[in-house]
Amino acid sequence: MKELVEAIRARGKGVGTEIVKVDMFLNHRLDTDLFVKMGRAFADAFAGEQPDLVLTVEASGIAAALTTAIAFGNVPVVFAKKSRTRNVTGDVYESSVFSFTHGVENHIRVAKEYLPANSKVLIIDDFLANGEAAEGLCNIVKQADAQVLGIGVCVEKSFQPGHEKLAKDGYKVVALAKVTGIQDGNLVVED
Amino acid sequence: MKELVEAIRARGKGVGTEIVKVDMFLNHRLDTDLFVKMGRAFADAFAGEQPDLVLTVEASGIAAALTTAIAFGNVPVVFAKKSRTRNVTGDVYESSVFSFTHGVENHIRVAKEYLPANSKVLIIDDFLANGEAAEGLCNIVKQADAQVLGIGVCVEKSFQPGHEKLAKDGYKVVALAKVTGIQDGNLVVED
Repeated sequence: MKELVEAIRARGKGVGTEIVKVDMFLNHRLDTDLFVKMGRAFADAFAGEQPDLVLTVEASGIAAALTTAIAFGNVPVVFAKKSRTRNVTGDVYESSVFSFTHGVENHIRVAKEYLPANSKVLIIDDFLANGEAAEGLCNIVKQADAQVLGIGVCVEKSFQPGHEKLAKDGYKVVALAKVTGIQDGNLVVED
Repeated sequence: MKELVEAIRARGKGVGTEIVKVDMFLNHRLDTDLFVKMGRAFADAFAGEQPDLVLTVEASGIAAALTTAIAFGNVPVVFAKKSRTRNVTGDVYESSVFSFTHGVENHIRVAKEYLPANSKVLIIDDFLANGEAAEGLCNIVKQADAQVLGIGVCVEKSFQPGHEKLAKDGYKVVALAKVTGIQDGNLVVED
């Protein structure tokens, strides 16, 4: 998506060889105009089948999930909650997600009642790197006997294996922008 | 706001004497249509002065902040991040927030560069109970030498002192729905 690629080139920063810093418009300060356009871009990319709901994980996936849900005609959003502890009540679907950024294991969970069996689910997130969060969400959808229509991410770090793993598992993955590397503090973005 | 009041009456649940459970449309599963309408309602309520940005706190404030920002013509959103630990680098504004729900003290923080001095800030959150989160956000805006235009919350628990405290401090507070009590598991909502 042209506007996102341009925003990453103009405003994003690379730190070291792995950290893609785009929090000035994507996940601390939100460029609202860009989010509305990203929502439309996801709706175009997944136009084949209308989702029953958009699924994401707190916190930074919520904005893109919501504008995507608006672009699909105001379908509901469900966001998985993160916790350092396991749930014990059994009224949730839960999956373990290792965060490479923070070096910890989180548990993500969705209340069973908000993810009905057989529902068509579009997964949206802000970032795709190692694919842990997306795999966790797919696992939760599977537990619910629901169906993943696809996985949309705003920014993909193409030099990490998330996209490849998810594609190998048979999921349709759409990234609106692909960062292929970091050179001298600058982000290299695919056209 | 009529639609929100109706949603709380039809779908919300009260647990014990204090817990207002509305996560089936407000903060786990999101009723997108309702969020778009709440955004417009906030833009109407604060129509007097155009904000430079909408400020909220992760995670459950993000959706209402974003639809409000859209209703104001796509102004940016900034969301404060929560952490259990104090920041030590000095590049952030930080405030302590005690969570009565979880019985812990959190620190909320905003990168200084995303909250410019003299900017006009509209604070939006999903819930107002004891007012700790809103007070923390006001404190951060004060540190930045910026200006709070007002505080908008989707649901207020009017039997807790948040609204009164914030109004006493001179802030304009708008709640789209006011839960005045819990009776036999049902939420009592003001018309």
